[in-house]
Amino acid sequence: MASAANYVYDTCQPGPAAELRIGVIGYGYWGPNVVRNLQGLENCQLVAICDSNPANLQGARQARPDVELTRDCSELLTSTQIDAIAVVTPVWTHFDLAKSALQNGKHVFVEKPFTSTTQQAEELIELATRNRLKIMVDHTFLFTGAVRKIRQLVDNGTLGKLYYYDSTRVNLGLFQHDINVVWDLAPHDLSIMDYIIPKKPEAIVATGERHLNGHVDVAFITIYFPGNVIAHINVNWLSPVKVCTTLIGGEKRMLVWNDLEADEKLKVYDKGVQMRTGHEIYELLVSYRSGDMWAPKVEPTEALKAELAYFIDCILNDRTPINDGPAGLRVVKMLEAADQSLKKRGTTIRL
Amino acid sequence: MASAANYVYDTCQPGPAAELRIGVIGYGYWGPNVVRNLQGLENCQLVAICDSNPANLQGARQARPDVELTRDCSELLTSTQIDAIAVVTPVWTHFDLAKSALQNGKHVFVEKPFTSTTQQAEELIELATRNRLKIMVDHTFLFTGAVRKIRQLVDNGTLGKLYYYDSTRVNLGLFQHDINVVWDLAPHDLSIMDYIIPKKPEAIVATGERHLNGHVDVAFITIYFPGNVIAHINVNWLSPVKVCTTLIGGEKRMLVWNDLEADEKLKVYDKGVQMRTGHEIYELLVSYRSGDMWAPKVEPTEALKAELAYFIDCILNDRTPINDGPAGLRVVKMLEAADQSLKKRGTTIRL
Amino acid sequence: MASAANYVYDTCQPGPAAELRIGVIGYGYWGPNVVRNLQGLENCQLVAICDSNPANLQGARQARPDVELTRDCSELLTSTQIDAIAVVTPVWTHFDLAKSALQNGKHVFVEKPFTSTTQQAEELIELATRNRLKIMVDHTFLFTGAVRKIRQLVDNGTLGKLYYYDSTRVNLGLFQHDINVVWDLAPHDLSIMDYIIPKKPEAIVATGERHLNGHVDVAFITIYFPGNVIAHINVNWLSPVKVCTTLIGGEKRMLVWNDLEADEKLKVYDKGVQMRTGHEIYELLVSYRSGDMWAPKVEPTEALKAELAYFIDCILNDRTPINDGPAGLRVVKMLEAADQSLKKRGTTIRL
Amino acid sequence: MASAANYVYDTCQPGPAAELRIGVIGYGYWGPNVVRNLQGLENCQLVAICDSNPANLQGARQARPDVELTRDCSELLTSTQIDAIAVVTPVWTHFDLAKSALQNGKHVFVEKPFTSTTQQAEELIELATRNRLKIMVDHTFLFTGAVRKIRQLVDNGTLGKLYYYDSTRVNLGLFQHDINVVWDLAPHDLSIMDYIIPKKPEAIVATGERHLNGHVDVAFITIYFPGNVIAHINVNWLSPVKVCTTLIGGEKRMLVWNDLEADEKLKVYDKGVQMRTGHEIYELLVSYRSGDMWAPKVEPTEALKAELAYFIDCILNDRTPINDGPAGLRVVKMLEAADQSLKKRGTTIRL
Repeated sequence: MASAANYVYDTCQPGPAAELRIGVIGYGYWGPNVVRNLQGLENCQLVAICDSNPANLQGARQARPDVELTRDCSELLTSTQIDAIAVVTPVWTHFDLAKSALQNGKHVFVEKPFTSTTQQAEELIELATRNRLKIMVDHTFLFTGAVRKIRQLVDNGTLGKLYYYDSTRVNLGLFQHDINVVWDLAPHDLSIMDYIIPKKPEAIVATGERHLNGHVDVAFITIYFPGNVIAHINVNWLSPVKVCTTLIGGEKRMLVWNDLEADEKLKVYDKGVQMRTGHEIYELLVSYRSGDMWAPKVEPTEALKAELAYFIDCILNDRTPINDGPAGLRVVKMLEAADQSLKKRGTTIRL
Repeated sequence: MASAANYVYDTCQPGPAAELRIGVIGYGYWGPNVVRNLQGLENCQLVAICDSNPANLQGARQARPDVELTRDCSELLTSTQIDAIAVVTPVWTHFDLAKSALQNGKHVFVEKPFTSTTQQAEELIELATRNRLKIMVDHTFLFTGAVRKIRQLVDNGTLGKLYYYDSTRVNLGLFQHDINVVWDLAPHDLSIMDYIIPKKPEAIVATGERHLNGHVDVAFITIYFPGNVIAHINVNWLSPVKVCTTLIGGEKRMLVWNDLEADEKLKVYDKGVQMRTGHEIYELLVSYRSGDMWAPKVEPTEALKAELAYFIDCILNDRTPINDGPAGLRVVKMLEAADQSLKKRGTTIRL
Repeated sequence: MASAANYVYDTCQPGPAAELRIGVIGYGYWGPNVVRNLQGLENCQLVAICDSNPANLQGARQARPDVELTRDCSELLTSTQIDAIAVVTPVWTHFDLAKSALQNGKHVFVEKPFTSTTQQAEELIELATRNRLKIMVDHTFLFTGAVRKIRQLVDNGTLGKLYYYDSTRVNLGLFQHDINVVWDLAPHDLSIMDYIIPKKPEAIVATGERHLNGHVDVAFITIYFPGNVIAHINVNWLSPVKVCTTLIGGEKRMLVWNDLEADEKLKVYDKGVQMRTGHEIYELLVSYRSGDMWAPKVEPTEALKAELAYFIDCILNDRTPINDGPAGLRVVKMLEAADQSLKKRGTTIRL
Repeated sequence: MASAANYVYDTCQPGPAAELRIGVIGYGYWGPNVVRNLQGLENCQLVAICDSNPANLQGARQARPDVELTRDCSELLTSTQIDAIAVVTPVWTHFDLAKSALQNGKHVFVEKPFTSTTQQAEELIELATRNRLKIMVDHTFLFTGAVRKIRQLVDNGTLGKLYYYDSTRVNLGLFQHDINVVWDLAPHDLSIMDYIIPKKPEAIVATGERHLNGHVDVAFITIYFPGNVIAHINVNWLSPVKVCTTLIGGEKRMLVWNDLEADEKLKVYDKGVQMRTGHEIYELLVSYRSGDMWAPKVEPTEALKAELAYFIDCILNDRTPINDGPAGLRVVKMLEAADQSLKKRGTTIRL
C-alpha cells in the first residue's frame, strides 16, 4: 500500500509510450469534472462522452467540441477504440455499466460508492480479475494533499497510537434521488478511514432519521476497530451551514482537519493526556500536556487530476491502485451494514 | 411548564418577607460558583459551607470570611438554622446527602446529574413529596439566555416542526474520576432537550470507547423521539479543541448555537427544503429556500445566579421548578439507558 | 444614479435587436475572466482577442477556438467589424489604447484604474463625449451583490447618518510591476466609496512604505468627507493572511462586510451609541444600544458578467453607466493625491 | 532591557525579606483589578484604598474588608505606613497624584497613559530620579505571554528584518470622558512597539474624526521608523465588533496576533517574498515562499499580576523597570504628536 500511496508525488519513472483511450459515461454533476481533469493528462485520450440527457450532451459539446458524443452507452461499451470507461452515473447503474465494460475488455473507473450491493462489487472484482482488467473506484479524497498528509502523520508516528476519528460532513442538500445521506456522504470518510487506519473494522452502528418522505437525511455512524480505536461520522443533508471537519485523536498528538479552510486545512496539536493510578486505589492522576499548534503546508493539488493520472499509470504500468475494487468493496460492505443498523434504529452489525 | 419557564424574566411579584437559610456542601470545582452567585441574592442567607478537604475550606474562608465553615457535613444536614442544602459534590455522594437533607426537613439543590441511578432519584422524589420539600437539579443551561431564546423560537413556531437536535460538546479534559464522559457532559444536552423538545424520548443508542484505562472518554448518543425527531450528542474528553455547538433543524428554519461565541451565540437561518414527487413516479423534486440569517440578541445573564434566585423563589412561594426532581430523573433515566447501550456497543434501548 | 444602479437586477426591457461586436486587448491575468463572462451574454459577439505574448494567445486559442487572435492590437483598434474594445492591459498602456479606440469610433471598457494620470482621464472623457462614445471603467465591485446591498442600506436609511468606512484589503502578493499597492488595491474601495457615500471627498492623507526595492507595498489612506464622515483604506501586499473586510459605521446601525465569507458576507448590527451632557457640565452620559445582528442574503451573481451585460446595454440603449469616465476620473484623482501625500510621508492633500 | 524582560519568567532569586506597603488610589474600572492581583503576591501588603466615590468604596469594602478605606487621598499620600502608591485614576489627575506621592517619598505605579503632557512626564521623572524613587507605568500588555513571545521572535531573528507592525484595536465603547480614542487605546500598541521594535520612531501622522460632539472616536495613526519600518494603529470606539489583531511582517516570517483567540493567539507564518530584477531592466522577478504555519504556545499568565510582582521586585531589589518613567514618556510624546497631527487632519510630525 505504501508504495502505491507514495506514487502520486513520486518523480515519474519512464513509462511505456502507450496511450489510454477513455470513454466517459455520464455528464451530469461530476462527469464534467472528470472530463475537465482528463484534459492535459499525459498518455491518455478522451475519445467519447455519453449521456442520455440531451441538455447534458449539449454541455459536453461546448466543453469538448473535439470529442465524439452519444446518447447510447453501448456505443462506448463495445467500441474497439476505447480501452477504459469512466462510469460517472447514479449508483444503481454502476453495476450494469461496469460489468458490460469489463465483459468488453475495458478497464473501469467507477464513481463512488462502487456498487449498490456487496454482491455486485464482488462480481465485478471477480470479473476484472478473470479478464486481467483494472477497477478503480473514485475515492477522490485519497488524492487530496490533506489526506496524504494525515496518512503521513499516522505512518510516521506523529500522532502516536490512534484513539478516534470523528468526522462531521453536513450541508444543505444536495438531496440524492436514489440513495440516502449515508450512501451519498459517508463513502468519503469510509474510504479515508480505510486508507489511514491500519486496522480492519469490527462492527458498525448507525442511527438516523428521514424527514421529507424520502430517504434518511440525517445519520450518525459509529465504527468500532480493534484496540479501542473508534470512528464516527455525522452526515446531514439538512444543515443550515456547511461543515467538513474531522478530529483525529492520538496518544501523542491530535489534529483537526477543516476542509473548508482555504489555507490552514490541517492543524496538528501537541496535546495529550496521561493517566495513572495514585497511591490510593480510588485516586486517579490525570496530567494534561498542551504545547504548540502546527499547520503543515498542504499541497493544493487538484485531487481528481492526480487520481486520473494515477488511474492511467496503474493501467499502463500494471500496478494495483490503492482504491481498487476491493477498496470499493470494503466501503460498500460498511454502507450495507450501516443500512442494516439504521433499519433497526441502531443495532450493532458485526463486519 | 410555560409559566415556570417564563418566571425568570418576569417582573417580580411581591413575595413573602421570609428568608431562606442555605448551607452548601462541597467547595471543589463548582461549589465556589454557587457560593459566589448566592451573594447579593434577595431573600436568602448563606449560613455554612462544608468540605472535607482542608485546602478547599481555606479557599472558602478567603471568599466568605463571614460564613461558618466545617468539614463535617452532618452539622449542616441537622442544623436547625438551615432551610435548604446545596449538594455540590461528586455524583456518587448525591443520594446519601440529599436523602439525609430531606429527612431532616431541608429543601435540596443538587448538582447534575441528579443521582447515580434511577432508583435513587425515585426514592428522593418520593421522600421530598412526602415531606413537602422541594428538589431542584442544577441544570444550569436552562437558565442561559441562549436556551431560553431557543425554547421561545420552538414555542412560537419560528423553527416550525422540529427535525433534529445535534450537539457537539468536546474539549481536552477535565477527566472525572467517578463517572464517564456521558455522565459528565451529556446531562447538559439531555436537560436542554427535555426542556425544548415537547415530546417524550422513545429510544436511545450510545456508542463510545475508553482509551486511558479508565472510563469511556469519547461517546456518541442518539435519542429517538416520536414524529421523526432525532437527537444526537457527541461528547469527548480527548479533543484538541473546545467545541460547544448545537445544530437544530426545523421545517421552517434552522439554527446554530455556538456557546463559545462571545456575541453571536445563536444564528437563525431562514433556510429550508421542500420535496414533492414530480409527474413521473421516480422523479423527486427538491426545492431549497435560502434567505437571511439572523442572530437574535441573547441576554447575557449569569445563568447560575438566575437559577439560584429561582430556587429561592420556588421554595418561598411554593412553586414547582422546571428543573425539579422528575426532570432530574428523566435525565438519569437516559444516562442509565446510554450506559446500557454503550456496554453492548450500541444496541437500542427503549425508554 | 439610482435608476442606473437598479438597472442590473431589473427585469429586462425589450431592447433593440442590435448586437455589439467586441474585441478584447489583453489576455493575461484578468482578460480570460472578461472573455469567459462575455460568453453567453445576449446582444454581443466576441470578435477578436489580442495579446502580444504568444503564451497568452495560446491560452486564448484553447478557450475560444472560434475567435480571431492576433498579436497586433492595431488590427482590433482599426477593424470595421468591431464596435467596442475592452482594454485589459497594464495601467500605463490604458491611455494610448483607449485613445486610439475612441479615435477609431469604438466604445471602450477599461480595466481599473482608468488611467495613470488625471490629465489622461480628462482627455479620454473629452474625446468620448465629442465622438458620442461610451467609456466604462471596470469597477467590478459595484456589481457585486454585497456592494449593491450596502448601497441599498445606505439609501434607505437603515444605517442612518454615515460615520465611517474602514476597509482592510491585504494579502501576500501579487506584486504589480508598474504600480504600487495603492494603485493596485485601493481603486476597489475608492470606487465603492464613490458609489455609496453621497458626498464629495475633501482631503486625502496617505502613508506607507516600500520594503523590496520596488514600489510602496504597504499603505494606509484616509479620506475626509464633509459632515465628519471619514474613510480609511489599509492595503498591503505583504500580509501573511488574506483579509478583505470593511466596517461601515452609521448613527443607527453598523455593518461588517467580509468578502471572504462564502455565505454571510454582510452582517448588519443593530448597535449604536448616544451621548448627551448630564446635569453638570463635565458629566458626559453615554448610552449604548445593542440589539440583533442580521445577515441579509446577498445575491451570488457573478459581478463581472453583470457588469459586461450592463456595458452592452448602456451602449445599445444609450444610457450613462454609473462607472463611466468621470467615475474613473474621480478614482484616479484620489490615487494621484494619495501618491502626492505618500511622497511627503502623510501630508494632507485637498481635493 | 533583555535581562529585565526575562525577569518575569525567571526563577526567583532569593530577595531581601523586606515588604512593600502599597496604597491604591482609584477603585473605578481598573482599580479593582489592581487590588485583586495584589492579593497573594509575595513581599507586599495592601494597606489602604482611596476613592472619592462612596459607591466605589463600598465595592472595595466587600472585596477587601481587611484594608483601610478612605475618600481622602492625602491620607495615603502622606501616610508613613505606605511605601508605594498605585495611581489608578483618570489621566488628568495622574500628574498631581504622582507628584505628591513622589514628593512624599513614595514609589509610584501609574495607570497608562503616564501623564497628559510630555512636560508633566519629564517633571515626574526628574523628581523620581532626584528622590531615588521608582516610577512604573502600567503598560500591562508588556507582561502578556503573547507580547513576550513576539519580543522573543523578533530578538532571536525568527521574523527577520522587520517590515511593518499593523494593529487594529476597535470595539463599541467604552467612551472615555476626559480623553479621545487615541489616548485611550493607542497606548497599548505604542508601548508594545516601544518594547519590540529596536528603533526610535522618526515621525507620526494621525487622522481621525469625532461623531458624537465629544472627542475623536475613530483614528488612524502611522509611525515611521528608520530602515523602512512602518507601524500603523487603527483605533475606534464605534465598531460593531471587537477586534484586537496585529499583523507583524518580517523579511523571513510574518505573524498574526489575535488577542481575542482563547488558544491560538499567535500564528507565525513561514511566508515571504523575494524580489530581484530580471535580465531586462523592466522585468521584475517576484518569488513567493509559503510554508507551514505555527502557533507557539503562549503562557496564559495574568499579565497584571506578573507586572505588579515585577513592580515590587524592582523596588525591593533596586532594578530599573522596562516600563519605567522614560518608557511612559516615550508613549506620551507619541500621543501628543498624534494629537497635533490629528488637529491638522494628518500632517507629519517629526519626533
